[in-house]
Amino acid sequence: MDYAGRRSRLRSAIEDADLDSLLVTHLPNIRYLSGFTGSAAAMLVDSRGVVLFTDGRYRTQAKQEVTNARIVIGRKSPLQTAAEWLIARRKSSRPTLADQISIGIEPESITAGMRDRLAALLKGTARLRSAPPLVERARMIKDADEILRIRRAVELGASLFPVACKDIRPGVSEVKVAAAMENAARCGGADGMSFATILASGPRSAIVHGRASRARIPRRGFVVCDFGVILADYCSDRTRTVHVGLPSRQALHLYQAVLEAQLTAIAAVRPGVTAADVDGAARRVLRSRKLARYFTHSTGHGLGLEIHEAPRLAAGQGQKLEPGMVVTIEPGVYVLGKWGVRIEDVVLVTASGCEVLTPTDKELVVI
Amino acid sequence: MDYAGRRSRLRSAIEDADLDSLLVTHLPNIRYLSGFTGSAAAMLVDSRGVVLFTDGRYRTQAKQEVTNARIVIGRKSPLQTAAEWLIARRKSSRPTLADQISIGIEPESITAGMRDRLAALLKGTARLRSAPPLVERARMIKDADEILRIRRAVELGASLFPVACKDIRPGVSEVKVAAAMENAARCGGADGMSFATILASGPRSAIVHGRASRARIPRRGFVVCDFGVILADYCSDRTRTVHVGLPSRQALHLYQAVLEAQLTAIAAVRPGVTAADVDGAARRVLRSRKLARYFTHSTGHGLGLEIHEAPRLAAGQGQKLEPGMVVTIEPGVYVLGKWGVRIEDVVLVTASGCEVLTPTDKELVVI
Repeated sequence: MDYAGRRSRLRSAIEDADLDSLLVTHLPNIRYLSGFTGSAAAMLVDSRGVVLFTDGRYRTQAKQEVTNARIVIGRKSPLQTAAEWLIARRKSSRPTLADQISIGIEPESITAGMRDRLAALLKGTARLRSAPPLVERARMIKDADEILRIRRAVELGASLFPVACKDIRPGVSEVKVAAAMENAARCGGADGMSFATILASGPRSAIVHGRASRARIPRRGFVVCDFGVILADYCSDRTRTVHVGLPSRQALHLYQAVLEAQLTAIAAVRPGVTAADVDGAARRVLRSRKLARYFTHSTGHGLGLEIHEAPRLAAGQGQKLEPGMVVTIEPGVYVLGKWGVRIEDVVLVTASGCEVLTPTDKELVVI
Repeated sequence: MDYAGRRSRLRSAIEDADLDSLLVTHLPNIRYLSGFTGSAAAMLVDSRGVVLFTDGRYRTQAKQEVTNARIVIGRKSPLQTAAEWLIARRKSSRPTLADQISIGIEPESITAGMRDRLAALLKGTARLRSAPPLVERARMIKDADEILRIRRAVELGASLFPVACKDIRPGVSEVKVAAAMENAARCGGADGMSFATILASGPRSAIVHGRASRARIPRRGFVVCDFGVILADYCSDRTRTVHVGLPSRQALHLYQAVLEAQLTAIAAVRPGVTAADVDGAARRVLRSRKLARYFTHSTGHGLGLEIHEAPRLAAGQGQKLEPGMVVTIEPGVYVLGKWGVRIEDVVLVTASGCEVLTPTDKELVVI
């Protein structure tokens, strides 16, 4: 991974934002900038270099994972360690550097309590300012290494659907199907699932985030399978809806409407259109079928190191799509107490349009 | 679960803290107070009742999971929805109620950015104040239902160790062993693992949080297995260290030292002692063997709905133990590049001392 390039571009962005330093607290941002995978860290980035603050549990791991950065191991929380280090650095610096520096913090990651404590500790040493989402902006555009990793994660993720289809049948518990998928993911090299596997059968398919439960798959109805893996740090995300038993004409109509909404939204993905445009494309199809009010969530989201990251494909989102963005396209329709259908793929925005990373068949599978 | 009792005690605590309401944003706290398991929510608790704010994805789920609370579904983030609802409530209330109310927020959960936006939205309607950790304090003492769930989670967790032992042998990858354990957990009814399974073999055993990797288990050396499940919302956590091949005298000595530290710390657990006392008990044993400097983390932590919750068993922690607390006891020794040993159990503080929830043999298993 091109950590050097990422850091150098971040330094320019920090300067453009009129900040002396950025104190990174969002762990996926730290991973993006250094490869560090520990669960407790803060990272200071400025023109003088990069400093990673963590605790004794991660001494060895930090040394193995992080290069070209100073590693500071503290006994307290990483942010307290960072504050003490900043105070010591200020004391040891020449008088010309002794003015208060302006440190950007990540307001969507740092807690209110932490910011208060940090501000109190750094009083007289540094002014804290809420920084724009500098690292998240950079992370929206995936580089070649990242796209390769996402491709592999998406491929491994896709391979779990046939595993599910083998196990889905009336009377089997949802969680048993999920267990088989998760075991296949692990055996395929996944670090884990990118979110709690959703396996929602029968009327449960109307629950948008219906995590696999002990409920047994009924003799007839939809089963929504929404699942993803984390492979070499990168996430996949995919939804397929199958039908157990013979689908009614109404069920087929519903499925076709969602599929058409999904294909229309995918066709709308290209550089220059806004996130809201793509969302609107899916919604228009469902509106024409009088199903729009059952589409209760947004059309998609970016993914990468996190399962949900920028951009968000929803109404009102003016963010323009750019080549290198990777987003999900996942319209759905949910009728309370009755049924639900969702179809989701991961697509990469290319120079001329987009590429569906797993271009598999989406015709309704009947089991 | 006794949601009514929890809410009623919380209302008293809110009043004692001189607040009109508490705006709960930490999701495990919301789950504790209502059973809601969605990934986006805020909850307002005051003398007028309980209001859960979430979004359209969770409309059905919220209705199924949450009783005796008003459920408000918004199109924006739960906190924005809450702010708009509070403003509307104020407008509709009688003039005598029109004074600014004082709303407690959870400073260790709400982000700095959210607090800023919330304060701006509620200007003139409510004053925000950082509340003490009222719900976390209540959650420290587990009730009978919770203890039963933790017992079951700990039992399921314990059953994974024999699964690991069957697979651990030279040449097998760590991740393969973890996959077998995780599949057994899922088949046993777990919602998932309570953290990324740690399986650290040979020199990797010195990495405190050495997640299962593609590394192959060497012919000789320690293997640290640290794993837990989530069963019916509650976490388990357990560490066993086994030795592959014949252990050297030095390895046996190391293992015995950690075991003695662990047993000594367990013997120190009883109502009235401080968290620091228990930590000190483990540390003293290792100090007497000149191993204290290799014990680089704290002795344990509370667990329940979260894998890490209060109290923290570490130096300087004055929190007194009380009956109903459930904590891990997990000293370890790590020698960089060479080896590591950790032994961990979950114990319940009782009226007279403590009960180890899985009182299984801890003699060194040699494979």
